[in-house]
Amino acid sequence: MTLNVLGWAAQSAKAPMAPWRFERRDPRPDDVVIDILWCGVCHSDLHNVQNDWGFSTYPMVPGHEIVGQVSAVGADVKSFKVGDRVGVGCMVDSCFSCDPCDDGEEQYCPHCVYTYGHVDPKDGMTTYGGYSQTIVVTERFVLKVPETIDPAGAAPLLCAGITTWSPLRHWQVGAGSKVAIVGLGGLGHMGLKLAKALGAEVTLFSRSPGKEADARRLGADRVVISTDADQMAAVADTFDLIIDTVPYVHDVNPYIPTLATDGTLVLVGYLGPLEPALNSAPMVFRRKAVAGSLIGGIRDTQEMLDFCGLHGITADVEVIGMQDIDTAFERLKRADVKYRFVIDMATLRA
Amino acid sequence: MTLNVLGWAAQSAKAPMAPWRFERRDPRPDDVVIDILWCGVCHSDLHNVQNDWGFSTYPMVPGHEIVGQVSAVGADVKSFKVGDRVGVGCMVDSCFSCDPCDDGEEQYCPHCVYTYGHVDPKDGMTTYGGYSQTIVVTERFVLKVPETIDPAGAAPLLCAGITTWSPLRHWQVGAGSKVAIVGLGGLGHMGLKLAKALGAEVTLFSRSPGKEADARRLGADRVVISTDADQMAAVADTFDLIIDTVPYVHDVNPYIPTLATDGTLVLVGYLGPLEPALNSAPMVFRRKAVAGSLIGGIRDTQEMLDFCGLHGITADVEVIGMQDIDTAFERLKRADVKYRFVIDMATLRA
Repeated sequence: MTLNVLGWAAQSAKAPMAPWRFERRDPRPDDVVIDILWCGVCHSDLHNVQNDWGFSTYPMVPGHEIVGQVSAVGADVKSFKVGDRVGVGCMVDSCFSCDPCDDGEEQYCPHCVYTYGHVDPKDGMTTYGGYSQTIVVTERFVLKVPETIDPAGAAPLLCAGITTWSPLRHWQVGAGSKVAIVGLGGLGHMGLKLAKALGAEVTLFSRSPGKEADARRLGADRVVISTDADQMAAVADTFDLIIDTVPYVHDVNPYIPTLATDGTLVLVGYLGPLEPALNSAPMVFRRKAVAGSLIGGIRDTQEMLDFCGLHGITADVEVIGMQDIDTAFERLKRADVKYRFVIDMATLRA
Repeated sequence: MTLNVLGWAAQSAKAPMAPWRFERRDPRPDDVVIDILWCGVCHSDLHNVQNDWGFSTYPMVPGHEIVGQVSAVGADVKSFKVGDRVGVGCMVDSCFSCDPCDDGEEQYCPHCVYTYGHVDPKDGMTTYGGYSQTIVVTERFVLKVPETIDPAGAAPLLCAGITTWSPLRHWQVGAGSKVAIVGLGGLGHMGLKLAKALGAEVTLFSRSPGKEADARRLGADRVVISTDADQMAAVADTFDLIIDTVPYVHDVNPYIPTLATDGTLVLVGYLGPLEPALNSAPMVFRRKAVAGSLIGGIRDTQEMLDFCGLHGITADVEVIGMQDIDTAFERLKRADVKYRFVIDMATLRA
């Protein structure tokens, strides 16, 4: 027996989003069944719906910033009970036996199962995401969401939050660190908040001066206009870590000279060729690096949620109804959102 | 009073190398005066003579892989005496007061003075390198060269050796590490020897199968033909560190998938745009990095020389006379040397 679930799906890369019924697996003993209450709209939902990366399959039910309430638990589930406020991020399973899984970095497990658009090898079923009523997830991939923070604002922590938190922790950002964020969108605004709360001195790189007040409110100590050569020169050799959240092709070369010796620019939003070509010279002359980073492991995600609970951190969100999703995607293409759309799943209708 | 010294210089980017007399500074109290006995021919000597990087000045006396004998010491010199076997690498001075200098990484000091083609801010004189009789160097930048190893074979340790040693140490290579080297030239052959002696499992990436026997003799446990898709697929997600020694533009994309999660490809030979464009996707999906690294600090250089003394490691060299330098440059362009030319300075004539 399976669960019949209502969601909203894309039937092709060109089709509008529309209601669609599908099956979820009959819960296993280690599964948690979650009634979805809120789901964030990640820029990668748009990339996936449009098949920008070339590996999309349809029908696709997007959504991997899920907050909900436990409605049932399997017999072996130890950490959750009916009624708990929980979250699900970008992953719903992994192999549990490789080095990354052993290290709590399931996102780098070669058999990691993404929350939607992926085939789960355990049952051969395609995964469907959080733009839906209900989800069934193995206990290890379910997160506790603090009751002290707004649940709609918490939803984007499950992707935008952990995607910026993971590099901040991996590159050991804390008091005394100098961190810069490129791009002030869903990821960027979380990067500002989290880096500031970790004690770093935080800079936003922006192409437009109009973002200064908002950036400072979100945690930036300084805004540097990246097209202003004098402002860029003034921050040469400064940053221990630059988190580049821009989700489309862009020139990273202007940022490299602003890294300190041994500094790293980490790409978290863009998959594709670095054009114009990355110049190795400033990297060689000061041992600088360009790296990539993907979401974060479950242990780090729980750590980040607990940290956000303690510090009262949530995403700045604009709540929408399920029927507004295509409009939201259009606005997302223009970066017209401060700073994350979150779907109120109470609006879900067939 | 200054020292009048015979060397061989390039008078322009197009001119052949030829004898040239020039002045070195009157030794200061902290200076060591060195009679040069051997000088390695680094690929960057060729880049500099040809002005490939656009910042050459002429006349230029190249050479930064110097082994010689102390002929005089200033009154304040504590660590060296007349007759000592010593070396000088790519740097002859730095500010001694910045963070990199404090950390023993003088190569990243913004005021680091290169051994040739640079203006020394302390006396306003241009520096001239090791294709010459004598050099005057402040004590802190003079290295002790073990008496137990061949001095001609030791000369390339001062650049090719430290340039590969520094990333091996910075990225903490040791027993259990998996290291790959790209390019089997002066740097690459030192990378094989040093990585192997540090206990790593060592792979050479090569475009031609003919290098296998030599690579194994030099320390490679495995040779992977980088143009063979099957061989490359067999080493996917393998290497903790790839040291890319190729000194000209080349595609680094094929190597990125062979890095393990958290692995780094470090460029030590090439300054310029990474073309074709570096693809960020495999970097994001497994938190991989591309970095640069420049020679190495004086403390690390002495450590490397001591390590080579203990392990009997030198470069494989072809000794040439000073008058053969233009022929050697021509052969270097064709990578026709196993694996480093070293000039016997006893051949220096006006």
